[in-house]
Amino acid sequence: MAKINENYLNLKGSYLFSEIAQRVAHFKNNNPDANIIRLGIGDVTQPLCPAIIEAMHTAVDEMSSQESFAGYGPEQGYRFLIEKIIKYQFEPYGIHLDESEIFVSDGSKCDSANIQEIFDKDLVVSLMSPVYPVYSDTNIMAGRSGKPNNNNQYQNFVYLESTAENGFNPPTPSGKVDLIYLCFPNNPTGTTLTKKQLKVWVDYAKENKSIILFDAAYEAFIQEPDVPHSIYEIEGAENVAIEFRSFSKTAGFTGLRCAYTVVPKSLMGYKSNGEPYSLNALWNRRQCTKFNGASYISQKAAEAVFSDEGRMQIENNISYYMDNAKIIREGLISQGIECYGGINAPYVWIKTPKNMSSWDFFSLMLEQVHVVGTPGVGFGFSGEGYYRLTAFSDRSQTEKVVQRFANLAL
Amino acid sequence: MAKINENYLNLKGSYLFSEIAQRVAHFKNNNPDANIIRLGIGDVTQPLCPAIIEAMHTAVDEMSSQESFAGYGPEQGYRFLIEKIIKYQFEPYGIHLDESEIFVSDGSKCDSANIQEIFDKDLVVSLMSPVYPVYSDTNIMAGRSGKPNNNNQYQNFVYLESTAENGFNPPTPSGKVDLIYLCFPNNPTGTTLTKKQLKVWVDYAKENKSIILFDAAYEAFIQEPDVPHSIYEIEGAENVAIEFRSFSKTAGFTGLRCAYTVVPKSLMGYKSNGEPYSLNALWNRRQCTKFNGASYISQKAAEAVFSDEGRMQIENNISYYMDNAKIIREGLISQGIECYGGINAPYVWIKTPKNMSSWDFFSLMLEQVHVVGTPGVGFGFSGEGYYRLTAFSDRSQTEKVVQRFANLAL
Repeated sequence: MAKINENYLNLKGSYLFSEIAQRVAHFKNNNPDANIIRLGIGDVTQPLCPAIIEAMHTAVDEMSSQESFAGYGPEQGYRFLIEKIIKYQFEPYGIHLDESEIFVSDGSKCDSANIQEIFDKDLVVSLMSPVYPVYSDTNIMAGRSGKPNNNNQYQNFVYLESTAENGFNPPTPSGKVDLIYLCFPNNPTGTTLTKKQLKVWVDYAKENKSIILFDAAYEAFIQEPDVPHSIYEIEGAENVAIEFRSFSKTAGFTGLRCAYTVVPKSLMGYKSNGEPYSLNALWNRRQCTKFNGASYISQKAAEAVFSDEGRMQIENNISYYMDNAKIIREGLISQGIECYGGINAPYVWIKTPKNMSSWDFFSLMLEQVHVVGTPGVGFGFSGEGYYRLTAFSDRSQTEKVVQRFANLAL
Repeated sequence: MAKINENYLNLKGSYLFSEIAQRVAHFKNNNPDANIIRLGIGDVTQPLCPAIIEAMHTAVDEMSSQESFAGYGPEQGYRFLIEKIIKYQFEPYGIHLDESEIFVSDGSKCDSANIQEIFDKDLVVSLMSPVYPVYSDTNIMAGRSGKPNNNNQYQNFVYLESTAENGFNPPTPSGKVDLIYLCFPNNPTGTTLTKKQLKVWVDYAKENKSIILFDAAYEAFIQEPDVPHSIYEIEGAENVAIEFRSFSKTAGFTGLRCAYTVVPKSLMGYKSNGEPYSLNALWNRRQCTKFNGASYISQKAAEAVFSDEGRMQIENNISYYMDNAKIIREGLISQGIECYGGINAPYVWIKTPKNMSSWDFFSLMLEQVHVVGTPGVGFGFSGEGYYRLTAFSDRSQTEKVVQRFANLAL
């Protein structure tokens, strides 16, 4: 009898963004003339840069002749791209990586979802709350969570509460945990750690033989000097951390699909007898067996991100989004609203006025001023009482949202 | 302590195609002037069709303006593609599918690797031998195999020996198995089943509440009338089978990455208490959580496969490859070599002359006549004494290989 993986039944029924979509559709149905502005889902809106478009046209043409046609590529990604990643993303920060330590993929969502497969199924997983749901859901599906309680907390997860009270930098766990998911610049709070703060985590992981799964998908949005772009800026991190990077937000690749994961060769997991075992070798085997490389066209597009024109054009796009973030942040603060993030990340994390619940504030915003954000509690229990806005919209919409906040009758 | 998934340690050390590559590199090193012809790896060689190239240029241009820019798409694939898949791939065979039963992805390797995640980890898995290694390796990694014996057979797998003696159609298992991987037209043997033969498997699955994982990646190469293009041509298969389809070989997408999987809504797995549970719902949840959709450009390219020009051009490419298969097959048979497949599939499966082992014959071919094929034993123990050639080369290389066979001193 083909029994199912019953761990899936521990997942919560509805997915945050489909719940939001349903509520918006319902409102729209009753209010067909409402001019709704959506700053909910973190998808980009600016078109791809000319340098990337040009590179893709060239790649498409290559596919049309037998001499330059590209069939199966390396599962780990093309060398032409990996070389540029090392040169432009790590060497400027004094980080030296070998080509075999970079694994190009079709997305950081996939990589951060799949990485748990190379670890034992009984490990203790530690997650921030609020958190990007993929980290928790994939560990629930793998059987590492146990059952949820009424507060949507799973019995076997160790939660790290990340709130305004602790500056969105929770203390390290009091006991031992095996896997630690960190995301900085953070989704959803938009906050960051300093190098000194991040070092505390690296030191914890060293001491406890834990592995940090460091999601740096928003690295390109960092504006301030003391914020680490990569966890490998911290001494010893190459022995305790895997890092995820993406072209999705950096360069508008949400529809193109290209990302990469760094698994240093010095990084070890452990066999049950305590013997160390290379995580690079395990991830390589995982990717070679279950993945067939990212699209050649997408990899050529990603290469163009690092050309002189590409880098300049990307920088302009990022400035555009970060100006949006500033407009939201400063606009709302001037209205007396408590805001976090939005300085080194394209998300602004808003404390709901009058201690409203996240969903109550969501409804108020939708019904009174026709703005769609994301209820903070959708990212986990410590997100209750918060609300997320993204900077990925266009300028005029962003400005309108700030004006509409001013019209809220609270 | 971050313990690893020790099931990975049950995998055999070296991957077939890297072993071949090493042996070829070694030979090439000692014989730099040898003109080596490679009919080993099943990668396509013909460039993409003009209709596909044109569609991709249009899609690239769409990405350059804000109005037509495509960000995150549906995890299940775009409707524009799914509609055409249903219309051109299933309706002509009298198969009626709902759009929600098709899941577009970045490759059949990924889908056939990931599908086992939605099933219980203690299921009994049944595999043909020889077999596409992904089916077995992914179940080894998930802990369903147990340890291998000296003959490279895993204690918990139920092997279905597929050889010339049983016409490459092994009998159904004598006991109960839960998951059955079938691939027809078959990789590596190039053989097919008739509808009546496939019905035996569907009936077995019904009786035993098993699920058939049917890989139809080579469906487009079928030339004869009684060979089923889809398992859903068999009555009742929608209650027992998942089907994998790919654009890789059909339309030359090995570097572009686009495929799809059919999970009928009527298909049920079982909870431990025996209650049925929708596999479509589980796969949808898996894909929404761990995948972010195939590249928009690749999906637009796949859509063009079904345009009038696209279909004509694809057909020409397929005829080209199948003419290669015929040249190999008929050429070798006329030399007295025992051959299978190559009629409805782009692979010719050769019985090694004089009962040589697969690797001995591989070496003989490489050293004497500088041809690279794939040793049959690389696909499993029942492949011992066989050797695979692909039809995916160009015409002149294919013809040369047949001539070189004639020069073999056996």
